[in-house]
Amino acid sequence: MEYFKNRKTIRNYSAEHISDLEIDEMLAAAAHAPTCGGMQLYNVIVTRSEEGKSALAPAHFNQPCLAGASAVLTFCADFNRVSRWARERGAEPGFDNLQSFISAMLDATILAQQFVTIAEMRGYGTCYLGTTTWNAPQIIEALGLPELVIPVITVTLGVPTGHLVDIQPRLPLDAIRSREKYEPVNIDSAYSELESREDSRRFMKENRKDSLAAVFTDVRYPKAGNEHFSEILMTVLHQQGFLK
Amino acid sequence: MEYFKNRKTIRNYSAEHISDLEIDEMLAAAAHAPTCGGMQLYNVIVTRSEEGKSALAPAHFNQPCLAGASAVLTFCADFNRVSRWARERGAEPGFDNLQSFISAMLDATILAQQFVTIAEMRGYGTCYLGTTTWNAPQIIEALGLPELVIPVITVTLGVPTGHLVDIQPRLPLDAIRSREKYEPVNIDSAYSELESREDSRRFMKENRKDSLAAVFTDVRYPKAGNEHFSEILMTVLHQQGFLK
Repeated sequence: MEYFKNRKTIRNYSAEHISDLEIDEMLAAAAHAPTCGGMQLYNVIVTRSEEGKSALAPAHFNQPCLAGASAVLTFCADFNRVSRWARERGAEPGFDNLQSFISAMLDATILAQQFVTIAEMRGYGTCYLGTTTWNAPQIIEALGLPELVIPVITVTLGVPTGHLVDIQPRLPLDAIRSREKYEPVNIDSAYSELESREDSRRFMKENRKDSLAAVFTDVRYPKAGNEHFSEILMTVLHQQGFLK
Repeated sequence: MEYFKNRKTIRNYSAEHISDLEIDEMLAAAAHAPTCGGMQLYNVIVTRSEEGKSALAPAHFNQPCLAGASAVLTFCADFNRVSRWARERGAEPGFDNLQSFISAMLDATILAQQFVTIAEMRGYGTCYLGTTTWNAPQIIEALGLPELVIPVITVTLGVPTGHLVDIQPRLPLDAIRSREKYEPVNIDSAYSELESREDSRRFMKENRKDSLAAVFTDVRYPKAGNEHFSEILMTVLHQQGFLK
């Protein structure tokens, strides 16, 4: 339990190498995580070469944790393999639709989180790159992803430098848990502690915003950007064959 | 590591009660899982009452693990709370789009998986209900989910009966992991072991299919059903405000 309460995302890694064998061992264990109908609707592309990392870097806005990682793992929703399996056995697959993408995305995300937990419990550092669906076209190109395969989340993996990292703050449980029916929370009770933290105030100052919320709406996740990347993702869903 | 390799989905629960306090404790620990920009884009609705479970049951095709569970947890993608936070602070949220739904869905799924791991490590049994996005409209109605909230995955939780459950088979690692570029796997090497298992053969016989793949394409996840539930989900995305 202590691990779960004290875990932290780690973005700085030492030059120490993690072996292919160990990554495979962790992935194989993670693959025992729950999966839709036992179908394992995912493929994980492990990038270790400098060339491969450089090809992925722009899609992740050149975040330094990517270049410094021992490995970069791109978790993809994959209905390609199951569809090929069906065809090779004379069955007709029907997975070129939104609901199938959602099932595969759930599978890939569950696998990613299981991998992250295993790696962190071994003392490794990981960081999710949420930029994966934003710049899916570049990742599809860099990794050669075929029809019915879409990258959904990326994990960087490395040995922590030992650089001090604080536990990230979380909202009170009442803000994220309802009983029996959805309970709209009181915003002040949910956010006052977070807003009064010194690092939140510094964050506001650095971004020249007079509320913490405005840093998220205006600077980090502005409407125009969200809409731009939503259009791209809708195109990707079409092009990769999930909106036939 | 042993836990991860030997974990099993548990669908049969004893009548033993798990306290609200303990569920809250596990959820609070799980909430330290990674989350998009620290925003915690989720709400978990915990259903304990018989009335609440009965309202959810049809949406999950009356699967027995639901009625028998000590608690049913519906993990929802939630941009409602963050949007209200922004408005109450005079900022303008821009999260009524596909990419925001995807971010919230990733967050909710990562939280669900962390909760499952914590609960299983304590010896509890859990089962995912992938029917959640299929019958989202009924769940939205039953739980009173507002705009920008969509249920993405459900977990049933209970004390295992001790009923013997086998570890579910998994494909060889080469079938789900690629190095540097996407590697299309050889279907025979990926599936021959699974196909030759006795339970797979029984599964084919019970479903009167001459291949295991056909059980998935024709019986469990037929094209017409996938397309029907995809249309429903697209409508839900519109109605809940994620495709403005």
